[in-house]
Amino acid sequence: MSTAYQQLSGVFQRLSRFSHLSAIAGWDMQTMMPAGGSQSRGAALAELSVLQHEILTSQRTGELISQAAQETLNDVEQANLYEMTRAWQQAALLPASLVEAKSIAGSRCEHAWRTQRPANDWQGFAENLKQVVRLSREEAQLRAEANGTSRYDALLDLYEPGMTSRKLDATFGDLKTWLPELLQKIVDKQAQESVDIPQGPFAIASQRELGLSVMKVLGFDFNAGRLDVSAHPFCGGVPEDVRITTRYDSALFSSAMMGVIHETGHARYEQNLPKQWAGQPVAQARSTAIHESQSLFFEMQLARSKEFLAFILPQVVEHLGAQPALTPANFVRLNQRVKPGLIRVDADEVSYPAHVILRYEIERALIEGDIEVDDIPALWNEKMQAYLGINTAEDYRNGCMQDIHWTDGAFGYFPTYTLGAMYAAQLFNAVSQAIPQLPELIARGELQPVFDWLQQNIWQHGSRFSTAQLITQATGEELNPRWFKAHLERRYLG
Amino acid sequence: MSTAYQQLSGVFQRLSRFSHLSAIAGWDMQTMMPAGGSQSRGAALAELSVLQHEILTSQRTGELISQAAQETLNDVEQANLYEMTRAWQQAALLPASLVEAKSIAGSRCEHAWRTQRPANDWQGFAENLKQVVRLSREEAQLRAEANGTSRYDALLDLYEPGMTSRKLDATFGDLKTWLPELLQKIVDKQAQESVDIPQGPFAIASQRELGLSVMKVLGFDFNAGRLDVSAHPFCGGVPEDVRITTRYDSALFSSAMMGVIHETGHARYEQNLPKQWAGQPVAQARSTAIHESQSLFFEMQLARSKEFLAFILPQVVEHLGAQPALTPANFVRLNQRVKPGLIRVDADEVSYPAHVILRYEIERALIEGDIEVDDIPALWNEKMQAYLGINTAEDYRNGCMQDIHWTDGAFGYFPTYTLGAMYAAQLFNAVSQAIPQLPELIARGELQPVFDWLQQNIWQHGSRFSTAQLITQATGEELNPRWFKAHLERRYLG
Repeated sequence: MSTAYQQLSGVFQRLSRFSHLSAIAGWDMQTMMPAGGSQSRGAALAELSVLQHEILTSQRTGELISQAAQETLNDVEQANLYEMTRAWQQAALLPASLVEAKSIAGSRCEHAWRTQRPANDWQGFAENLKQVVRLSREEAQLRAEANGTSRYDALLDLYEPGMTSRKLDATFGDLKTWLPELLQKIVDKQAQESVDIPQGPFAIASQRELGLSVMKVLGFDFNAGRLDVSAHPFCGGVPEDVRITTRYDSALFSSAMMGVIHETGHARYEQNLPKQWAGQPVAQARSTAIHESQSLFFEMQLARSKEFLAFILPQVVEHLGAQPALTPANFVRLNQRVKPGLIRVDADEVSYPAHVILRYEIERALIEGDIEVDDIPALWNEKMQAYLGINTAEDYRNGCMQDIHWTDGAFGYFPTYTLGAMYAAQLFNAVSQAIPQLPELIARGELQPVFDWLQQNIWQHGSRFSTAQLITQATGEELNPRWFKAHLERRYLG
Repeated sequence: MSTAYQQLSGVFQRLSRFSHLSAIAGWDMQTMMPAGGSQSRGAALAELSVLQHEILTSQRTGELISQAAQETLNDVEQANLYEMTRAWQQAALLPASLVEAKSIAGSRCEHAWRTQRPANDWQGFAENLKQVVRLSREEAQLRAEANGTSRYDALLDLYEPGMTSRKLDATFGDLKTWLPELLQKIVDKQAQESVDIPQGPFAIASQRELGLSVMKVLGFDFNAGRLDVSAHPFCGGVPEDVRITTRYDSALFSSAMMGVIHETGHARYEQNLPKQWAGQPVAQARSTAIHESQSLFFEMQLARSKEFLAFILPQVVEHLGAQPALTPANFVRLNQRVKPGLIRVDADEVSYPAHVILRYEIERALIEGDIEVDDIPALWNEKMQAYLGINTAEDYRNGCMQDIHWTDGAFGYFPTYTLGAMYAAQLFNAVSQAIPQLPELIARGELQPVFDWLQQNIWQHGSRFSTAQLITQATGEELNPRWFKAHLERRYLG
């Protein structure tokens, strides 16, 4: 006779197998599927998603959770039950009618956005967004009542369990005291440097070979994953078979190269999640912000360091050919360039937090009901002026219409980007303490000690510990923005 | 209030959405997946397959079928209900324990076969095969009791509904009276011709471009499908997104080219199945043999005709470069070469039926219990000698261990290859009657009238009619091997 916990593990194992199929079919949709397959693929994925929701929220699952809570469980089992309970509560909380209405409103808003954004059609977009906001507020209200938190905090908790707007206000508040001035100093300093831009075209096939070669340096396991192309780069698939993507621009190689490195950070986390608990919630990545911390550790902390850039440049030259702009000094300047701009996804690591804080402040006010959709453009412009000194008035397409997140109602997601950047800096500082000769190792491409440290401190734990515990165990303290500040000062003003 | 028939259509729509996901994940496994993903992919696909089996054989599905049979249905709905009932019966008939035992024995046999075949290890293979045969006999017995047929006929009916060993004996008996002599005449005739072999290497990228270009000529819809690479070529995916594969040999281009043409025949059938009934059993391809008739219509009837070869040669030269062996006359000789050999999949269309008849006779006796696994090698050698004049004694790997079909217990499948070849010849004869100027059209690559005829007579009907009805409506008579004979005589002795 199996215990309730064992039966519950069976239920989640089954759900995870269905998730495997939807992850692969989802990857295929972005990378391989011809346009004609779109409608039937959407229907097939929705059917599976309905089934998964039914299994997760079934009476039997609820009963097993109650029973398992009475059983004697070891630490890992308790952590697993905690994650199972959380998944069950989150799913069971919302009436099916709201889930469906939100999904329909989100699809409609996103679909229209694809043409409204290029047309700079804020009025048209705002109409759809109002529906999404209305339903997201309803969702937030239900979650807030269940969690005993504010509406926005209830959404934030979906992406970053344990994070609150009070903590965010403190952390982002800290950033706001020093970031604008630091940014200005860096921009002024870099204004005196000249940077040569490498001249393309760079053959796509050669860029791909370069990407694969860098992935190898970074320890990507090609027996458990692949690199492909998609319009929007992502890391998908399953831990046993991680699918990362990039997009190539023949005029510019560094965005694809750095994109591949970023996704490789996500991928190594996935590939090294605890195999002994595979298929269970406790074996999954800790959170969106910790996931982002791994990609930013790889891209920002490691790969844009002058040591790594010096190490990798010969491989760049080998695949793309030598040219005057590909000297060690210029290659560092190219990859450490700071230039405030309109678009978040194109931002450097110094101005990026400004984009995130702006979105956080607006989306929180929106969900809490302090502002309405019609207020967004003016607020956007005001904050872009204040944080980055850029006027975005009436340029909606490069302003408040640039991101896809709100169209789907993914409010609460944006802060995880900057949390990830700060966790990455804090982790890298800890690695540097643990490995005194780190810069020399990186300059020689000997990265195994770094990977071992991440494996030991982050990857192997899956969701066994809370984010705060995980970070404290790894670095000796909870999230502290000083390491991010120290990193920026050292890299850009040092 | 929806009718039982409508509810049943909903059940099959849902099953078809799940099949969509397993088709894509299955395609991915053969074309994209790194080896490390194998185990979790297998588990995920098995989980979905268990779910589909549960839904199909559930009490509710059975009740809806009974109720729908009492409702007033139009012709198409009746045909659909017939196919639904058939699917339900076939699935509900077998105890889950037998399905599982057969699946395990099949996987074990196939897995071991991958190393036993290269090692020529008949004894080792025979041990596993005995288990598969034992379980297949059990399955056949249960199906035979339900259908009121012989054991082997019950398995045959799974692949080719309505076909019986009595009909096969008549048809294959007819072939056996004239095929060996015809084959000998052709071999003697061709012995007097000299054939130049094109000299490689032929770049894989160029072969792929050639394949895509031929697919375009053949009307493949690239908005609803793709061409990729796999170890064993197949046509997979779903009608809205058909995935065909091939394999390339840089020393030899014609096998990949003809393989692509063959799979394109399968693909066009799938792409043109009736969209108005999509997701319902009646919208599926009629049978394995009719599917094969479409691929062989494209490959053997159309593409290996001297008219098509003359039309396509300039494209071959354009992609692979000119060389002395690529003259019109030599290109025809290359693609119409008849050479009896050991291996079925490498066989030309004249000797192919001998391979199939041999397998049919052996597998039928095996399932009916007239022979045992240990009798196979001697019988194989005896029949290879009789039908093709080839000694295979003790060469198990190129004899009775060459195919994968029996390892999985797919007894009853082999005859569909030759049925397909005969249907293809009969259909091509009917097209030729309907379009008097056909050879000239083919020589100019104007194939739309041929596709229109197939669309009108085969593709659009899905499973609405029985195979016998379909073929009679299209050609004026049931299966008649004389058209296959006439085709071979005209092409090879004409």
